[in-house]
Amino acid sequence: MAEFAEGSNASFSKTITDADVVLFAGVSGDTNPLHLDAEYAAKSRFKQRIAHGMLSASLISTVLGTKLPGPGAIYMGQTLEFKGPVFLGDTVTASATITSWDGGKGPMTIATSCHNQRGEVVVTGEARVLYRP
Amino acid sequence: MAEFAEGSNASFSKTITDADVVLFAGVSGDTNPLHLDAEYAAKSRFKQRIAHGMLSASLISTVLGTKLPGPGAIYMGQTLEFKGPVFLGDTVTASATITSWDGGKGPMTIATSCHNQRGEVVVTGEARVLYRP
Amino acid sequence: MAEFAEGSNASFSKTITDADVVLFAGVSGDTNPLHLDAEYAAKSRFKQRIAHGMLSASLISTVLGTKLPGPGAIYMGQTLEFKGPVFLGDTVTASATITSWDGGKGPMTIATSCHNQRGEVVVTGEARVLYRP
Amino acid sequence: MAEFAEGSNASFSKTITDADVVLFAGVSGDTNPLHLDAEYAAKSRFKQRIAHGMLSASLISTVLGTKLPGPGAIYMGQTLEFKGPVFLGDTVTASATITSWDGGKGPMTIATSCHNQRGEVVVTGEARVLYRP
Repeated sequence: MAEFAEGSNASFSKTITDADVVLFAGVSGDTNPLHLDAEYAAKSRFKQRIAHGMLSASLISTVLGTKLPGPGAIYMGQTLEFKGPVFLGDTVTASATITSWDGGKGPMTIATSCHNQRGEVVVTGEARVLYRP
Repeated sequence: MAEFAEGSNASFSKTITDADVVLFAGVSGDTNPLHLDAEYAAKSRFKQRIAHGMLSASLISTVLGTKLPGPGAIYMGQTLEFKGPVFLGDTVTASATITSWDGGKGPMTIATSCHNQRGEVVVTGEARVLYRP
Repeated sequence: MAEFAEGSNASFSKTITDADVVLFAGVSGDTNPLHLDAEYAAKSRFKQRIAHGMLSASLISTVLGTKLPGPGAIYMGQTLEFKGPVFLGDTVTASATITSWDGGKGPMTIATSCHNQRGEVVVTGEARVLYRP
Repeated sequence: MAEFAEGSNASFSKTITDADVVLFAGVSGDTNPLHLDAEYAAKSRFKQRIAHGMLSASLISTVLGTKLPGPGAIYMGQTLEFKGPVFLGDTVTASATITSWDGGKGPMTIATSCHNQRGEVVVTGEARVLYRP
């Protein structure tokens, strides 16, 4: 019997800190001042530094790669809609729910989203994953 | 006169190393053994550790956030198709080309892709970006 | 025609945070308690932890290596005068202006300085750079 | 009796790895491809990626801030001559020798240099430090 089925869900939460943003800048090379320069960010629409959108999106990869379906997952595709900013100190929860899967060799379609500690959705999208445990 | 127009393009290249993968695992929490466990990875279809797909995708964010259009970019959405593995030591080039833009307040549609040092495409997709410099 | 000339200038700004100081300590090995120990620092002339002077100086390298002249820069020398402390949370802007250059194979002399968000100069000095794009 | 005098010396050694370079890029924002892009670096005069010059220079700060004179050091100035490249995996030793000091409130003049594991000098220069232990 399959360990997962349509409707199975999982989530992963992480507080996004300044350290995450500095390290993400180093790993990605993305030094956009909105992420690194408090003076620039204060004048932006966000009024303060925000985390890289892809950093939040990476938490989706974490759910898929460690929980649903976890090891054996082969990431085929992902759509992402960035819905709102993540500020330093926010806790982001990435959630994933299987919406379509034949239970075998076919791709899983997985609804994915991220929200912050106030319940505000910051990222939505859909993943396609093969499962070869 | 707009600094960018349909057809404008830019790229960013970075060698993806073990340090990147370790730091990305730390920042994202994605501890899938395919990225961190050489013994596990040796038995996988890839025969060796591979970088997180989202790490390559993050280089797309770098092009958008630092070059095209750079500061002033507001990331609205991104589609991603993961086409092939990135091994540790591979150099990934993320490229972006504006495919549709009204030159003003409307969203830019940007064709995005990543390829490795052998010219093999590893990620494709499309970004939507607002530009508010 | 040269892209740069005497008088050309560029800058790079970054908020210096605790994460930067911790990581800089790890990379450099400089564990002086003035940077890492709030109790020690509270009794110092600065009354609080300060960033490593070389961390601010590193932003000068960033301007030279990414903007003026950017890739193709070969860093020959740098003088540094540390004029004042950088506290955690300060935003440091490193600025560079070409003061002497023959437009070709000769070394660029570049006036360099760093100031904080209150306009206070924290580092001054001069760089010598060869440009081989 | 002063703990230090003219002629006193100390050193600090560290192997410069890819992790150091990635972290230094994140902390400084210096994403020059000579440091991060193996394909670009292969075509450069150095034929491979090199560490940021300021990263080696930072080891001088480490000697001053932790050993000679150590806590109580106030960094006033530094001259730097970059004499040769540091490759990933090289072990850099930063050395410092007091060349002039009144033994009290006056500034220490300290000869500083960095060499690699083959004895090749990669950085030279002079530091000025006040000592207020």
